[in-house]
Amino acid sequence: MIKVRVPATAANIGPGFDCLGVALNIYNDIEVEECNEGLSINISGERCGDVPVDETNLVYRSMKKVFDVAGFSPKGIRLNQKNGIPITRGLGSSAACIVGGMTAANALAGFPFDKNELMKMAVEADGHPDNVVPAMMGGMTAACMEDGEVLYVKIQPPEGIKFAVMIPDIMVKTAKARKIIPRTIPLEDAVFNIGRTAVLVASFLTGSTDNLMTATQDRIHQPYRKALIPHWDEVYSYSRELGAKGVFLSGSGPTIIAILDKGYSHFVQQMKVFVSSFEEHWEVRIADFCHHGAVTC
Amino acid sequence: MIKVRVPATAANIGPGFDCLGVALNIYNDIEVEECNEGLSINISGERCGDVPVDETNLVYRSMKKVFDVAGFSPKGIRLNQKNGIPITRGLGSSAACIVGGMTAANALAGFPFDKNELMKMAVEADGHPDNVVPAMMGGMTAACMEDGEVLYVKIQPPEGIKFAVMIPDIMVKTAKARKIIPRTIPLEDAVFNIGRTAVLVASFLTGSTDNLMTATQDRIHQPYRKALIPHWDEVYSYSRELGAKGVFLSGSGPTIIAILDKGYSHFVQQMKVFVSSFEEHWEVRIADFCHHGAVTC
Repeated sequence: MIKVRVPATAANIGPGFDCLGVALNIYNDIEVEECNEGLSINISGERCGDVPVDETNLVYRSMKKVFDVAGFSPKGIRLNQKNGIPITRGLGSSAACIVGGMTAANALAGFPFDKNELMKMAVEADGHPDNVVPAMMGGMTAACMEDGEVLYVKIQPPEGIKFAVMIPDIMVKTAKARKIIPRTIPLEDAVFNIGRTAVLVASFLTGSTDNLMTATQDRIHQPYRKALIPHWDEVYSYSRELGAKGVFLSGSGPTIIAILDKGYSHFVQQMKVFVSSFEEHWEVRIADFCHHGAVTC
Repeated sequence: MIKVRVPATAANIGPGFDCLGVALNIYNDIEVEECNEGLSINISGERCGDVPVDETNLVYRSMKKVFDVAGFSPKGIRLNQKNGIPITRGLGSSAACIVGGMTAANALAGFPFDKNELMKMAVEADGHPDNVVPAMMGGMTAACMEDGEVLYVKIQPPEGIKFAVMIPDIMVKTAKARKIIPRTIPLEDAVFNIGRTAVLVASFLTGSTDNLMTATQDRIHQPYRKALIPHWDEVYSYSRELGAKGVFLSGSGPTIIAILDKGYSHFVQQMKVFVSSFEEHWEVRIADFCHHGAVTC
Protein backbone atom coordinates (compact mmCIF):
# COMPACT_ATOMS: atom_id res chain seq x y z
CA MET A 1 0.00 0.00 0.00
CA ILE A 2 1.41 3.37 -1.11
CA LYS A 3 0.50 6.30 1.12
CA VAL A 4 0.93 9.89 -0.05
CA ARG A 5 0.23 13.09 1.89
CA VAL A 6 -0.07 16.29 -0.17
CA PRO A 7 -0.59 19.84 1.14
CA ALA A 8 -3.05 22.61 0.41
CA THR A 9 -1.48 25.62 -1.29
CA ALA A 10 -2.15 29.35 -1.48
CA ALA A 11 -1.10 30.82 -4.84
CA ASN A 12 -0.94 34.39 -6.18
CA ILE A 13 0.31 35.75 -2.85
CA GLY A 14 -0.42 39.49 -2.98
CA PRO A 15 1.55 41.05 -5.84
CA GLY A 16 3.03 37.69 -6.88
CA PHE A 17 0.32 36.82 -9.38
CA ASP A 18 0.99 33.48 -11.08
CA CYS A 19 4.34 33.06 -9.33
CA LEU A 20 4.37 33.14 -5.51
CA GLY A 21 2.86 30.22 -3.63
CA VAL A 22 2.97 28.61 -0.23
CA ALA A 23 2.25 25.09 1.03
CA LEU A 24 0.07 24.83 4.16
CA ASN A 25 -0.29 22.06 6.72
CA ILE A 26 -3.80 21.16 5.54
CA TYR A 27 -3.63 17.83 3.72
CA ASN A 28 -5.18 15.31 1.39
CA ASP A 29 -4.15 11.71 2.08
CA ILE A 30 -4.08 9.17 -0.68
CA GLU A 31 -3.67 5.41 -0.33
CA VAL A 32 -3.14 3.36 -3.46
CA GLU A 33 -2.49 -0.29 -4.18
CA GLU A 34 -2.53 -2.52 -7.20
CA CYS A 35 -5.28 -5.12 -7.17
CA ASN A 36 -6.25 -7.93 -9.52
CA GLU A 37 -8.70 -6.00 -11.66
CA GLY A 38 -10.89 -2.94 -12.04
CA LEU A 39 -10.91 0.43 -10.33
CA SER A 40 -12.18 0.90 -6.80
CA ILE A 41 -12.24 4.41 -5.36
CA ASN A 42 -13.25 5.32 -1.85
CA ILE A 43 -13.60 8.99 -0.86
CA SER A 44 -13.88 10.49 2.60
CA GLY A 45 -13.50 13.94 4.11
CA GLU A 46 -14.33 17.36 2.61
CA ARG A 47 -17.44 17.30 0.39
CA CYS A 48 -16.77 13.68 -0.45
CA GLY A 49 -20.17 13.23 -2.13
CA ASP A 50 -19.13 15.66 -4.91
CA VAL A 51 -16.02 13.76 -5.94
CA PRO A 52 -16.37 11.18 -8.75
CA VAL A 53 -15.40 7.58 -7.98
CA ASP A 54 -14.94 6.41 -11.57
CA GLU A 55 -12.25 6.95 -14.21
CA THR A 56 -12.98 10.69 -14.26
CA ASN A 57 -11.61 11.03 -10.70
CA LEU A 58 -8.78 13.59 -10.85
CA VAL A 59 -6.38 11.61 -8.64
CA TYR A 60 -6.90 8.54 -10.80
CA ARG A 61 -6.56 10.49 -14.06
CA SER A 62 -3.29 11.95 -12.80
CA MET A 63 -2.02 8.50 -11.83
CA LYS A 64 -2.94 7.23 -15.28
CA LYS A 65 -0.79 9.92 -16.96
CA VAL A 66 2.26 8.76 -15.02
CA PHE A 67 1.52 5.10 -15.73
CA ASP A 68 1.19 5.87 -19.46
CA VAL A 69 4.48 7.76 -19.68
CA ALA A 70 6.25 5.14 -17.56
CA GLY A 71 4.77 2.26 -19.60
CA PHE A 72 3.44 0.73 -16.38
CA SER A 73 0.17 -1.24 -16.59
CA PRO A 74 -1.32 -2.24 -13.24
CA LYS A 75 -3.98 -4.96 -13.42
CA GLY A 76 -6.32 -2.97 -11.22
CA ILE A 77 -6.21 -0.04 -8.80
CA ARG A 78 -7.67 0.40 -5.35
CA LEU A 79 -7.64 4.07 -4.23
CA ASN A 80 -8.60 5.63 -0.90
CA GLN A 81 -8.76 9.40 -0.96
CA LYS A 82 -9.21 11.31 2.29
CA ASN A 83 -9.72 15.00 1.54
CA GLY A 84 -8.74 17.50 4.19
CA ILE A 85 -8.36 20.36 1.69
CA PRO A 86 -11.60 22.29 1.05
CA ILE A 87 -12.70 22.05 -2.60
CA THR A 88 -13.12 25.13 -4.87
CA ARG A 89 -12.02 27.49 -2.12
CA GLY A 90 -8.73 28.69 -3.65
CA LEU A 91 -6.59 26.31 -1.61
CA GLY A 92 -5.19 24.22 -4.43
CA SER A 93 -7.35 21.12 -4.03
CA SER A 94 -7.08 20.29 -7.76
CA ALA A 95 -3.29 20.70 -7.75
CA ALA A 96 -3.16 18.51 -4.64
CA CYS A 97 -5.12 15.77 -6.45
CA ILE A 98 -2.81 16.00 -9.47
CA VAL A 99 0.43 16.13 -7.44
CA GLY A 100 -0.82 13.48 -4.99
CA GLY A 101 -1.97 11.14 -7.76
CA MET A 102 1.23 11.51 -9.74
CA THR A 103 3.42 11.04 -6.65
CA ALA A 104 1.49 7.90 -5.69
CA ALA A 105 1.62 6.50 -9.22
CA ASN A 106 5.35 7.15 -9.43
CA ALA A 107 5.87 5.18 -6.22
CA LEU A 108 3.63 2.33 -7.42
CA ALA A 109 5.56 2.15 -10.71
CA GLY A 110 8.89 1.89 -8.85
CA PHE A 111 9.94 5.56 -8.98
CA PRO A 112 10.74 5.92 -12.72
CA PHE A 113 10.67 9.76 -12.39
CA ASP A 114 12.38 12.24 -10.09
CA LYS A 115 10.53 15.07 -8.37
CA ASN A 116 11.37 17.63 -11.09
CA GLU A 117 10.10 15.35 -13.85
CA LEU A 118 6.90 14.72 -11.91
CA MET A 119 6.51 18.45 -11.35
CA LYS A 120 6.76 19.14 -15.06
CA MET A 121 4.00 16.62 -15.75
CA ALA A 122 1.89 18.08 -12.96
CA VAL A 123 2.30 21.65 -14.25
CA GLU A 124 1.27 20.51 -17.73
CA ALA A 125 -1.79 18.82 -16.26
CA ASP A 126 -2.82 21.78 -14.06
CA GLY A 127 -1.91 24.39 -16.67
CA HIS A 128 -0.10 26.66 -14.18
CA PRO A 129 2.83 26.33 -11.79
CA ASP A 130 1.25 28.44 -9.01
CA ASN A 131 -0.18 25.64 -6.86
CA VAL A 132 1.71 22.68 -8.27
CA VAL A 133 5.20 23.93 -7.34
CA PRO A 134 4.53 24.51 -3.62
CA ALA A 135 2.36 21.35 -3.43
CA MET A 136 5.29 19.34 -4.78
CA MET A 137 8.19 21.17 -3.10
CA GLY A 138 6.68 22.63 0.08
CA GLY A 139 7.45 25.90 1.82
CA MET A 140 7.14 29.15 -0.08
CA THR A 141 8.12 29.16 -3.74
CA ALA A 142 8.82 31.68 -6.46
CA ALA A 143 8.27 30.24 -9.92
CA CYS A 144 8.13 31.24 -13.56
CA MET A 145 7.78 29.39 -16.85
CA GLU A 146 10.44 29.35 -19.59
CA ASP A 147 9.75 27.45 -22.81
CA GLY A 148 7.32 25.14 -21.03
CA GLU A 149 9.79 24.40 -18.22
CA VAL A 150 9.23 25.50 -14.63
CA LEU A 151 11.98 27.50 -12.98
CA TYR A 152 11.50 27.82 -9.24
CA VAL A 153 13.30 28.77 -6.05
CA LYS A 154 12.25 27.63 -2.59
CA ILE A 155 12.13 30.51 -0.13
CA GLN A 156 12.97 29.86 3.51
CA PRO A 157 10.29 31.70 5.48
CA PRO A 158 11.01 33.64 8.68
CA GLU A 159 10.45 31.97 12.07
CA GLY A 160 7.06 32.43 13.70
CA ILE A 161 5.06 33.22 10.58
CA LYS A 162 1.68 31.48 10.50
CA PHE A 163 -1.43 31.96 8.40
CA ALA A 164 -4.98 32.69 9.48
CA VAL A 165 -7.03 30.97 6.80
CA MET A 166 -10.54 32.36 6.42
CA ILE A 167 -12.76 30.22 4.23
CA PRO A 168 -16.27 31.37 3.30
CA ASP A 169 -18.78 28.72 2.32
CA ILE A 170 -19.16 29.94 -1.24
CA MET A 171 -17.68 28.79 -4.51
CA VAL A 172 -15.53 30.87 -6.92
CA LYS A 173 -14.89 29.25 -10.27
CA THR A 174 -11.25 29.72 -11.31
CA ALA A 175 -12.26 30.32 -14.93
CA LYS A 176 -14.62 33.16 -13.92
CA ALA A 177 -11.99 34.62 -11.58
CA ARG A 178 -9.47 34.59 -14.44
CA LYS A 179 -11.86 36.28 -16.87
CA ILE A 180 -12.57 39.16 -14.50
CA ILE A 181 -8.95 40.39 -14.74
CA PRO A 182 -8.32 42.80 -17.66
CA ARG A 183 -5.96 41.51 -20.37
CA THR A 184 -4.28 44.93 -20.64
CA ILE A 185 -3.15 46.93 -17.63
CA PRO A 186 -1.51 50.30 -16.93
CA LEU A 187 2.29 50.17 -16.79
CA GLU A 188 2.18 51.80 -13.38
CA ASP A 189 0.11 48.92 -11.98
CA ALA A 190 2.68 46.45 -13.32
CA VAL A 191 5.48 48.51 -11.75
CA PHE A 192 3.50 48.62 -8.47
CA ASN A 193 3.33 44.81 -8.40
CA ILE A 194 6.90 44.22 -9.59
CA GLY A 195 8.35 46.43 -6.83
CA ARG A 196 6.21 44.83 -4.15
CA THR A 197 7.02 41.33 -5.38
CA ALA A 198 10.75 42.12 -5.11
CA VAL A 199 10.32 43.58 -1.62
CA LEU A 200 8.03 40.71 -0.55
CA VAL A 201 10.46 37.97 -1.58
CA ALA A 202 13.43 39.86 -0.09
CA SER A 203 11.48 40.51 3.13
CA PHE A 204 10.56 36.85 3.55
CA LEU A 205 14.14 35.76 2.93
CA THR A 206 15.63 38.34 5.29
CA GLY A 207 12.96 38.11 7.98
CA SER A 208 11.85 41.73 7.52
CA THR A 209 8.21 41.00 8.36
CA ASP A 210 7.37 44.63 9.12
CA ASN A 211 7.42 45.27 5.36
CA LEU A 212 4.71 42.76 4.61
CA MET A 213 1.64 45.01 4.86
CA THR A 214 2.99 47.14 2.03
CA ALA A 215 4.75 44.30 0.22
CA THR A 216 1.60 42.15 -0.01
CA GLN A 217 -0.37 44.90 -1.78
CA ASP A 218 -1.55 44.16 -5.29
CA ARG A 219 -3.16 46.02 -8.18
CA ILE A 220 -3.41 43.24 -10.75
CA HIS A 221 -5.86 40.63 -9.48
CA GLN A 222 -7.32 41.40 -6.05
CA PRO A 223 -8.96 44.75 -6.97
CA TYR A 224 -10.98 42.89 -9.63
CA ARG A 225 -11.54 39.59 -7.90
CA LYS A 226 -12.73 41.08 -4.66
CA ALA A 227 -16.05 41.74 -6.42
CA LEU A 228 -16.53 37.97 -6.27
CA ILE A 229 -15.68 37.73 -2.56
CA PRO A 230 -18.32 38.75 -0.01
CA HIS A 231 -17.07 40.95 2.84
CA TRP A 232 -13.52 41.22 1.40
CA ASP A 233 -13.05 44.82 2.58
CA GLU A 234 -14.34 44.12 6.09
CA VAL A 235 -12.22 41.00 6.56
CA TYR A 236 -9.17 42.79 5.15
CA SER A 237 -9.55 45.79 7.46
CA TYR A 238 -10.37 43.77 10.55
CA SER A 239 -7.37 41.49 9.93
CA ARG A 240 -5.18 44.58 9.95
CA GLU A 241 -6.80 45.81 13.15
CA LEU A 242 -6.02 42.45 14.72
CA GLY A 243 -2.33 42.83 13.82
CA ALA A 244 -2.02 40.89 10.57
CA LYS A 245 1.30 41.60 8.82
CA GLY A 246 -0.32 41.13 5.43
CA VAL A 247 -3.64 40.02 3.95
CA PHE A 248 -4.15 38.37 0.58
CA LEU A 249 -6.61 36.41 -1.52
CA SER A 250 -5.65 32.74 -1.71
CA GLY A 251 -5.46 31.64 -5.35
CA SER A 252 -8.54 32.96 -7.10
CA GLY A 253 -10.45 32.94 -3.79
CA PRO A 254 -12.77 32.95 -2.00
CA THR A 255 -10.39 32.11 0.87
CA ILE A 256 -8.67 35.12 2.43
CA ILE A 257 -5.39 34.62 4.30
CA ALA A 258 -3.83 36.86 6.93
CA ILE A 259 -0.11 36.58 7.72
CA LEU A 260 0.57 36.57 11.47
CA ASP A 261 3.74 36.56 13.51
CA LYS A 262 2.07 36.38 16.94
CA GLY A 263 -1.33 36.38 18.67
CA TYR A 264 -2.57 33.46 16.57
CA SER A 265 -5.34 32.22 18.88
CA HIS A 266 -6.48 35.74 19.76
CA PHE A 267 -6.83 36.46 16.03
CA VAL A 268 -8.91 33.34 15.46
CA GLN A 269 -11.20 34.00 18.43
CA GLN A 270 -11.87 37.60 17.44
CA MET A 271 -12.26 36.88 13.73
CA LYS A 272 -14.71 34.04 14.42
CA VAL A 273 -16.92 36.46 16.34
CA PHE A 274 -16.55 39.04 13.54
CA VAL A 275 -17.55 36.72 10.68
CA SER A 276 -20.40 35.11 12.64
CA SER A 277 -22.67 38.02 11.64
CA PHE A 278 -22.17 37.38 7.91
CA GLU A 279 -24.95 35.60 6.03
CA GLU A 280 -22.64 32.84 4.74
CA HIS A 281 -20.63 30.58 7.06
CA TRP A 282 -16.89 31.31 7.44
CA GLU A 283 -14.36 28.83 8.77
CA VAL A 284 -11.35 30.45 10.48
CA ARG A 285 -8.28 28.40 11.33
CA ILE A 286 -4.54 28.76 11.80
CA ALA A 287 -2.26 27.01 9.31
CA ASP A 288 1.49 26.64 9.35
CA PHE A 289 3.93 26.12 6.49
CA CYS A 290 4.17 22.60 5.13
CA HIS A 291 7.92 22.58 4.59
CA HIS A 292 8.29 19.31 2.67
CA GLY A 293 5.52 19.24 0.04
CA ALA A 294 4.05 15.95 -1.17
CA VAL A 295 5.58 12.93 0.58
CA THR A 296 5.28 9.21 0.16
CA CYS A 297 4.89 7.58 3.59
CA MET B 1 37.30 68.93 5.26
CA ILE B 2 34.40 66.46 4.71
CA LYS B 3 35.13 63.65 2.25
CA VAL B 4 32.35 61.56 0.76
CA ARG B 5 32.64 58.64 -1.63
CA VAL B 6 29.46 57.62 -3.48
CA PRO B 7 29.01 54.68 -5.87
CA ALA B 8 27.68 54.28 -9.40
CA THR B 9 24.45 52.33 -9.57
CA ALA B 10 22.69 50.13 -12.10
CA ALA B 11 18.90 50.36 -11.82
CA ASN B 12 16.04 48.46 -13.50
CA ILE B 13 17.90 45.17 -13.34
CA GLY B 14 16.21 42.94 -15.92
CA PRO B 15 12.57 42.43 -14.94
CA GLY B 16 12.91 44.63 -11.85
CA PHE B 17 11.87 47.86 -13.57
CA ASP B 18 11.84 50.79 -11.12
CA CYS B 19 12.73 48.57 -8.16
CA LEU B 20 15.91 46.48 -8.39
CA GLY B 21 19.24 48.26 -8.23
CA VAL B 22 22.86 47.56 -7.45
CA ALA B 23 25.77 49.72 -6.26
CA LEU B 24 29.06 49.27 -8.14
CA ASN B 25 32.63 50.02 -7.12
CA ILE B 26 32.89 52.96 -9.53
CA TYR B 27 32.90 56.18 -7.52
CA ASN B 28 32.48 59.91 -7.38
CA ASP B 29 34.52 61.58 -4.63
CA ILE B 30 33.37 64.80 -3.05
CA GLU B 31 35.34 67.07 -0.73
CA VAL B 32 33.53 69.89 1.00
CA GLU B 33 34.49 72.52 3.52
CA GLU B 34 33.00 75.68 4.85
CA CYS B 35 34.92 78.81 3.88
CA ASN B 36 34.49 82.48 4.69
CA GLU B 37 32.36 83.44 1.72
CA GLY B 38 31.12 82.55 -1.74
CA LEU B 39 30.96 79.30 -3.65
CA SER B 40 34.05 77.71 -5.16
CA ILE B 41 33.62 74.51 -7.17
CA ASN B 42 36.42 72.49 -8.69
CA ILE B 43 35.62 69.56 -10.99
CA SER B 44 37.89 66.81 -12.21
CA GLY B 45 37.45 63.41 -13.79
CA GLU B 46 34.75 62.17 -16.23
CA ARG B 47 33.66 64.85 -18.73
CA CYS B 48 34.51 67.53 -16.19
CA GLY B 49 34.11 70.34 -18.72
CA ASP B 50 30.36 69.62 -18.99
CA VAL B 51 29.64 70.03 -15.28
CA PRO B 52 28.58 73.48 -14.06
CA VAL B 53 30.68 75.15 -11.39
CA ASP B 54 28.08 77.65 -10.17
CA GLU B 55 24.94 77.39 -8.03
CA THR B 56 23.30 75.14 -10.64
CA ASN B 57 25.82 72.39 -9.87
CA LEU B 58 23.80 69.32 -8.83
CA VAL B 59 26.02 68.40 -5.88
CA TYR B 60 25.77 71.94 -4.56
CA ARG B 61 22.00 72.13 -5.13
CA SER B 62 21.59 68.87 -3.21
CA MET B 63 23.74 70.20 -0.35
CA LYS B 64 21.62 73.34 -0.27
CA LYS B 65 18.42 71.32 0.22
CA VAL B 66 19.87 69.65 3.31
CA PHE B 67 21.17 72.96 4.67
CA ASP B 68 17.73 74.54 4.18
CA VAL B 69 15.84 71.75 5.97
CA ALA B 70 18.46 71.65 8.74
CA GLY B 71 18.46 75.45 9.10
CA PHE B 72 22.23 75.44 8.62
CA SER B 73 23.79 78.48 6.93
CA PRO B 74 27.47 78.12 6.02
CA LYS B 75 29.23 81.39 5.24
CA GLY B 76 30.76 79.97 2.10
CA ILE B 77 31.36 76.56 0.48
CA ARG B 78 34.44 75.11 -1.17
CA LEU B 79 33.65 71.95 -3.16
CA ASN B 80 35.96 69.55 -4.97
CA GLN B 81 34.15 67.02 -7.12
CA LYS B 82 36.11 64.17 -8.69
CA ASN B 83 33.85 62.22 -11.03
CA GLY B 84 34.67 58.58 -11.68
CA ILE B 85 31.13 57.74 -12.75
CA PRO B 86 30.45 58.24 -16.47
CA ILE B 87 27.73 60.85 -17.09
CA THR B 88 24.46 60.09 -18.97
CA ARG B 89 25.40 56.46 -19.44
CA GLY B 90 22.74 54.85 -17.21
CA LEU B 91 25.09 54.45 -14.25
CA GLY B 92 23.33 56.74 -11.79
CA SER B 93 25.66 59.73 -11.99
CA SER B 94 22.82 62.16 -11.11
CA ALA B 95 21.72 60.06 -8.13
CA ALA B 96 25.36 59.90 -7.03
CA CYS B 97 25.59 63.71 -7.12
CA ILE B 98 22.38 64.05 -5.12
CA VAL B 99 23.25 61.34 -2.57
CA GLY B 100 26.87 62.50 -2.35
CA GLY B 101 25.92 66.15 -1.94
CA MET B 102 23.31 65.42 0.70
CA THR B 103 25.60 63.07 2.62
CA ALA B 104 28.37 65.69 2.60
CA ALA B 105 26.00 68.49 3.65
CA ASN B 106 24.62 66.35 6.47
CA ALA B 107 28.14 65.78 7.77
CA LEU B 108 29.02 69.48 7.47
CA ALA B 109 25.86 70.43 9.39
CA GLY B 110 26.72 68.03 12.22
CA PHE B 111 24.64 65.04 11.17
CA PRO B 112 21.11 66.36 11.85
CA PHE B 113 19.57 63.55 9.74
CA ASP B 114 19.95 59.78 9.76
CA LYS B 115 20.51 57.76 6.58
CA ASN B 116 16.80 56.99 6.07
CA GLU B 117 15.84 60.66 6.37
CA LEU B 118 18.55 61.60 3.89
CA MET B 119 17.38 58.87 1.55
CA LYS B 120 13.83 60.21 1.60
CA MET B 121 15.11 63.68 0.64
CA ALA B 122 17.30 62.19 -2.08
CA VAL B 123 14.41 60.16 -3.55
CA GLU B 124 12.25 63.30 -3.63
CA ALA B 125 15.03 65.16 -5.41
CA ASP B 126 15.74 62.40 -7.96
CA GLY B 127 12.10 61.51 -8.47
CA HIS B 128 12.69 57.75 -8.26
CA PRO B 129 14.16 55.34 -5.72
CA ASP B 130 15.90 53.13 -8.34
CA ASN B 131 19.39 54.63 -8.17
CA VAL B 132 19.15 56.57 -4.93
CA VAL B 133 18.50 53.55 -2.70
CA PRO B 134 21.54 51.48 -3.76
CA ALA B 135 23.71 54.64 -3.93
CA MET B 136 22.81 55.37 -0.32
CA MET B 137 22.67 51.83 1.06
CA GLY B 138 25.04 49.85 -1.16
CA GLY B 139 24.78 46.26 -2.32
CA MET B 140 21.73 45.12 -4.22
CA THR B 141 18.39 46.59 -3.19
CA ALA B 142 14.71 45.91 -3.78
CA ALA B 143 12.59 49.01 -3.30
CA CYS B 144 9.07 50.30 -3.76
CA MET B 145 7.25 53.50 -2.90
CA GLU B 146 4.30 53.71 -0.48
CA ASP B 147 2.65 57.09 0.13
CA GLY B 148 5.84 58.93 -0.80
CA GLU B 149 7.95 56.78 1.52
CA VAL B 150 10.61 54.38 0.27
CA LEU B 151 10.40 50.81 1.46
CA TYR B 152 13.53 48.82 0.67
CA VAL B 153 15.37 45.63 1.53
CA LYS B 154 19.08 45.09 1.04
CA ILE B 155 19.86 41.82 -0.70
CA GLN B 156 23.02 39.95 0.16
CA PRO B 157 24.50 38.89 -3.19
CA PRO B 158 26.12 35.50 -3.79
CA GLU B 159 29.91 35.16 -3.56
CA GLY B 160 31.88 35.60 -6.76
CA ILE B 161 29.35 37.63 -8.70
CA LYS B 162 30.93 40.50 -10.64
CA PHE B 163 29.66 42.73 -13.41
CA ALA B 164 31.08 43.33 -16.88
CA VAL B 165 30.11 46.94 -17.54
CA MET B 166 29.99 47.82 -21.23
CA ILE B 167 29.68 51.55 -21.85
CA PRO B 168 29.19 52.88 -25.39
CA ASP B 169 30.23 56.44 -26.05
CA ILE B 170 26.71 57.66 -26.85
CA MET B 171 24.12 59.50 -24.80
CA VAL B 172 20.59 58.29 -23.98
CA LYS B 173 18.32 60.87 -22.39
CA THR B 174 16.35 59.36 -19.50
CA ALA B 175 13.23 61.33 -20.48
CA LYS B 176 13.32 59.91 -24.04
CA ALA B 177 14.00 56.41 -22.70
CA ARG B 178 10.96 56.73 -20.40
CA LYS B 179 8.68 57.95 -23.21
CA ILE B 180 9.51 55.01 -25.44
CA ILE B 181 7.86 52.57 -23.01
CA PRO B 182 4.11 52.09 -23.61
CA ARG B 183 1.85 53.31 -20.78
CA THR B 184 -0.40 50.26 -21.14
CA ILE B 185 0.92 46.73 -21.40
CA PRO B 186 -0.45 43.20 -21.83
CA LEU B 187 -1.20 41.43 -18.55
CA GLU B 188 0.94 38.52 -19.69
CA ASP B 189 4.00 40.79 -19.98
CA ALA B 190 3.41 42.01 -16.44
CA VAL B 191 3.10 38.42 -15.24
CA PHE B 192 6.29 37.54 -17.15
CA ASN B 193 8.20 40.28 -15.28
CA ILE B 194 6.59 39.63 -11.88
CA GLY B 195 7.54 35.94 -11.95
CA ARG B 196 11.08 36.66 -13.09
CA THR B 197 11.51 39.39 -10.48
CA ALA B 198 10.45 36.93 -7.75
CA VAL B 199 12.82 34.26 -9.08
CA LEU B 200 15.66 36.80 -9.55
CA VAL B 201 15.50 38.12 -5.98
CA ALA B 202 15.14 34.61 -4.55
CA SER B 203 18.02 33.37 -6.72
CA PHE B 204 20.34 36.15 -5.58
CA LEU B 205 19.46 35.56 -1.94
CA THR B 206 19.88 31.80 -2.17
CA GLY B 207 22.92 31.80 -4.46
CA SER B 208 21.10 30.00 -7.30
CA THR B 209 23.02 31.80 -10.03
CA ASP B 210 22.16 29.24 -12.69
CA ASN B 211 18.66 30.75 -12.79
CA LEU B 212 19.86 34.20 -13.73
CA MET B 213 19.73 33.94 -17.52
CA THR B 214 15.99 33.29 -17.36
CA ALA B 215 15.39 35.41 -14.27
CA THR B 216 16.97 38.54 -15.79
CA GLN B 217 14.65 38.46 -18.83
CA ASP B 218 12.31 41.40 -19.25
CA ARG B 219 9.36 42.38 -21.44
CA ILE B 220 8.57 45.83 -20.04
CA HIS B 221 11.47 48.14 -20.80
CA GLN B 222 14.36 46.48 -22.64
CA PRO B 223 12.40 45.38 -25.74
CA TYR B 224 11.52 49.07 -26.33
CA ARG B 225 14.68 50.75 -25.13
CA LYS B 226 17.01 48.53 -27.11
CA ALA B 227 15.99 50.59 -30.16
CA LEU B 228 18.03 53.40 -28.59
CA ILE B 229 21.08 51.20 -27.94
CA PRO B 230 23.39 50.38 -30.85
CA HIS B 231 24.47 46.74 -31.12
CA TRP B 232 22.26 45.62 -28.18
CA ASP B 233 21.44 42.25 -29.75
CA GLU B 234 25.06 41.50 -30.66
CA VAL B 235 26.42 42.45 -27.23
CA TYR B 236 23.63 40.47 -25.53
CA SER B 237 24.27 37.33 -27.56
CA TYR B 238 28.05 37.51 -27.36
CA SER B 239 27.88 38.04 -23.58
CA ARG B 240 25.90 34.80 -23.36
CA GLU B 241 28.43 33.02 -25.55
CA LEU B 242 31.17 34.18 -23.20
CA GLY B 243 29.35 32.63 -20.23
CA ALA B 244 27.41 35.57 -18.76
CA LYS B 245 24.79 34.42 -16.24
CA GLY B 246 22.56 37.32 -17.18
CA VAL B 247 22.61 40.45 -19.32
CA PHE B 248 20.65 43.63 -18.68
CA LEU B 249 20.39 47.29 -19.62
CA SER B 250 21.73 49.53 -16.85
CA GLY B 251 19.13 52.13 -15.90
CA SER B 252 17.76 53.58 -19.12
CA GLY B 253 21.01 52.77 -20.93
CA PRO B 254 23.09 52.91 -22.99
CA THR B 255 25.35 50.86 -20.67
CA ILE B 256 24.85 47.09 -20.89
CA ILE B 257 25.88 44.91 -17.95
CA ALA B 258 26.67 41.20 -17.96
CA ILE B 259 26.58 39.21 -14.71
CA LEU B 260 29.59 36.92 -14.34
CA ASP B 261 30.56 34.34 -11.73
CA LYS B 262 33.95 33.45 -13.27
CA GLY B 263 36.23 34.15 -16.23
CA TYR B 264 36.15 37.90 -15.64
CA SER B 265 39.34 38.88 -17.45
CA HIS B 266 38.71 36.46 -20.31
CA PHE B 267 35.31 38.10 -20.79
CA VAL B 268 36.79 41.59 -20.87
CA GLN B 269 39.56 40.65 -23.31
CA GLN B 270 37.17 38.94 -25.74
CA MET B 271 34.47 41.59 -25.47
CA LYS B 272 36.98 44.39 -26.08
CA VAL B 273 37.99 42.72 -29.34
CA PHE B 274 34.32 42.19 -30.25
CA VAL B 275 33.22 45.82 -29.70
CA SER B 276 36.32 47.27 -31.36
CA SER B 277 34.66 46.83 -34.77
CA PHE B 278 31.68 49.02 -33.80
CA GLU B 279 31.59 52.59 -35.10
CA GLU B 280 31.24 54.11 -31.61
CA HIS B 281 33.80 53.53 -28.86
CA TRP B 282 32.88 51.04 -26.10
CA GLU B 283 34.57 50.88 -22.71
CA VAL B 284 34.54 47.41 -21.14
CA ARG B 285 35.46 46.93 -17.49
CA ILE B 286 34.79 44.65 -14.53
CA ALA B 287 32.97 46.12 -11.54
CA ASP B 288 32.26 44.58 -8.17
CA PHE B 289 29.49 45.30 -5.67
CA CYS B 290 29.94 48.37 -3.54
CA HIS B 291 28.59 46.89 -0.32
CA HIS B 292 28.44 50.02 1.81
CA GLY B 293 26.89 52.78 -0.33
CA ALA B 294 27.77 56.43 0.23
CA VAL B 295 30.31 56.89 3.03
CA THR B 296 31.80 59.85 4.80
CA CYS B 297 35.53 59.33 5.12
